[in-house]
Amino acid sequence: MEQEQQQVMSNKQIILKDYVVGFPKESDMLLKTSETINLKLPQGCSNGVLVKNLYLSCDPYMRMRMTKTEGSYVDSFTPGSPITGYGVAKVLESGHANFKKGDLIWGFTGWEEYSIINAPEGLFKIEHTDVPLSYYTGILGMPGMTAYIGFYDICAPKKGEYVFVSAASGAVGQLVGQFAKLSGCYVVGSAGTKEKVDLLKNKFGFDEAFNYKEEQDLDAALKRYFPEGIDIYFENVGGKMLDAVLLNMRLNGRISVCGMISQYNLEQREGVRNLLTLITKRVRMQGFIVSDHYHKYPKYLEMIIPLIKQGTINYIEDIVEGLENAPAALIGLFSGNNVGKQVVVVARE
Amino acid sequence: MEQEQQQVMSNKQIILKDYVVGFPKESDMLLKTSETINLKLPQGCSNGVLVKNLYLSCDPYMRMRMTKTEGSYVDSFTPGSPITGYGVAKVLESGHANFKKGDLIWGFTGWEEYSIINAPEGLFKIEHTDVPLSYYTGILGMPGMTAYIGFYDICAPKKGEYVFVSAASGAVGQLVGQFAKLSGCYVVGSAGTKEKVDLLKNKFGFDEAFNYKEEQDLDAALKRYFPEGIDIYFENVGGKMLDAVLLNMRLNGRISVCGMISQYNLEQREGVRNLLTLITKRVRMQGFIVSDHYHKYPKYLEMIIPLIKQGTINYIEDIVEGLENAPAALIGLFSGNNVGKQVVVVARE
Repeated sequence: MEQEQQQVMSNKQIILKDYVVGFPKESDMLLKTSETINLKLPQGCSNGVLVKNLYLSCDPYMRMRMTKTEGSYVDSFTPGSPITGYGVAKVLESGHANFKKGDLIWGFTGWEEYSIINAPEGLFKIEHTDVPLSYYTGILGMPGMTAYIGFYDICAPKKGEYVFVSAASGAVGQLVGQFAKLSGCYVVGSAGTKEKVDLLKNKFGFDEAFNYKEEQDLDAALKRYFPEGIDIYFENVGGKMLDAVLLNMRLNGRISVCGMISQYNLEQREGVRNLLTLITKRVRMQGFIVSDHYHKYPKYLEMIIPLIKQGTINYIEDIVEGLENAPAALIGLFSGNNVGKQVVVVARE
Repeated sequence: MEQEQQQVMSNKQIILKDYVVGFPKESDMLLKTSETINLKLPQGCSNGVLVKNLYLSCDPYMRMRMTKTEGSYVDSFTPGSPITGYGVAKVLESGHANFKKGDLIWGFTGWEEYSIINAPEGLFKIEHTDVPLSYYTGILGMPGMTAYIGFYDICAPKKGEYVFVSAASGAVGQLVGQFAKLSGCYVVGSAGTKEKVDLLKNKFGFDEAFNYKEEQDLDAALKRYFPEGIDIYFENVGGKMLDAVLLNMRLNGRISVCGMISQYNLEQREGVRNLLTLITKRVRMQGFIVSDHYHKYPKYLEMIIPLIKQGTINYIEDIVEGLENAPAALIGLFSGNNVGKQVVVVARE
């Protein structure tokens, strides 16, 4: 009897009401408690897994999915359906040979208490559980791999080079800065509050950091911090910052184009005027999508797990409790409310 | 007596009057017949060479040198002094071990009848004289190497890929298109007159070509010619064309940034809004300067000389007679007056 009671549950979900224009608002999303669901894989879902979601990841790229787009690297969300994104979850039932009940996984799941994942091949099984599970939404998940691939593979850093990171206290930026220090580079970060600037300098070991909101002239700010110019720019914001960086690139510089968070909410994107520098300074500017590189995840774990355990790498999360607070947390990314990686706790186990 | 008379000559020169703002005009330059010069290397110029200039090259990058710039890859011109640029010349007297009287060279020289080149290490000695000498301002000189490096090295073309070339009938573009066909690619070019479009299709073997001035919507034009998208863009123009191309790039596309002729005369450069595509399509955009790659010139000659002699590669020059017509020829580049490589004949031998 008890077992039967457990199988039928309600399922809280965060639904996208409709495609979003401009800056997203909490009211673009809706908390809905769905009809009771049967906690069993439905018939005909022989390869799927049923999971209980534990931690959800708020990531800037999700803004693009709130707009109807075609031919992008991720599908748009479906209005009327739960938002999807990276998360950490526990397998309750598995129809797939790679997973069994009780496994912990990270990967694409739904913004809801329970999800059925029909194509679990893309999920990663969590093997190391002696680190906080929430880290698999960040340093041990997609953002960690993004920093790793975007910095080491795309930028090919050399000792002594000058590195600039924008949105530097975010999930990706804080790691890029620390990877740059481990590589013997000089690294400066920008962020949007004094608190974040202090974190960059005192917690993450950036050589310098500045609050871009307090700079009238980004070009002048960069010239102050990089009198010799910038070898490597890890691009997270786009727009005016990119334009200022282009004016300060050194010969044979590299720009790893990871994100452009300043542009996602604009109906008309800002124009970048200084691209001629790509020629005069022989700059390589390269975009990438981390999921193309997931075959390197085991190699990354080999590097990063010891660094975490030794305390060589610091990592800061901004943790919000409760699925009902997920919309505000997601939207907060675009005004820079979060300090560190924004995580939503749905359940702790 | 006759020998002494020959040694003292006058020297016609094209002088830049002052730095140029906006679109350059003929009146920004001045034909000046300088005081007679002694046709001997001056004392103390023990490493220099004295040359008689034969062919001068008009190249778009020269516009940048008409403006006072700092930290660029080439120095600005000096107002009051002759314009300098690539050319073909004959050595009249040499103080340098690499050169002797009678040698033909190409490289940086002055826009004048006779030049003293103080650091001739950068000059290339012309070994193959069974091709038109003027070719060393184009297909066998800087523009040829630009097409070769920019297409093969920077774009890494693969058979069957879709290639777009802007300013396609120019010195560089006409070669890029033919290299693309030799590589088994599908290639489309844009140019600014019907005559040039016809040349692209009928003379240079482009699969398709269009007149960008007749297109209201460049994005729509590109979608018409590239329903599958663009793998490789050889960028010669910048601005609106680049923005339209970005919307049509395919996954893992490459953009070789060779020049941005549409932007050189603008006081405020146009903004490029579609850079987010670099991420979504994982595009690599890379600027280059051909002179970094001149060590590969012998290898290029080995490839290109037989192709010219066999008639496999076509090459069109727009030849203007007389140094006095050089300013108009140079300025004509920016309104697209030239059909093919713009050359100025100073003397034929």
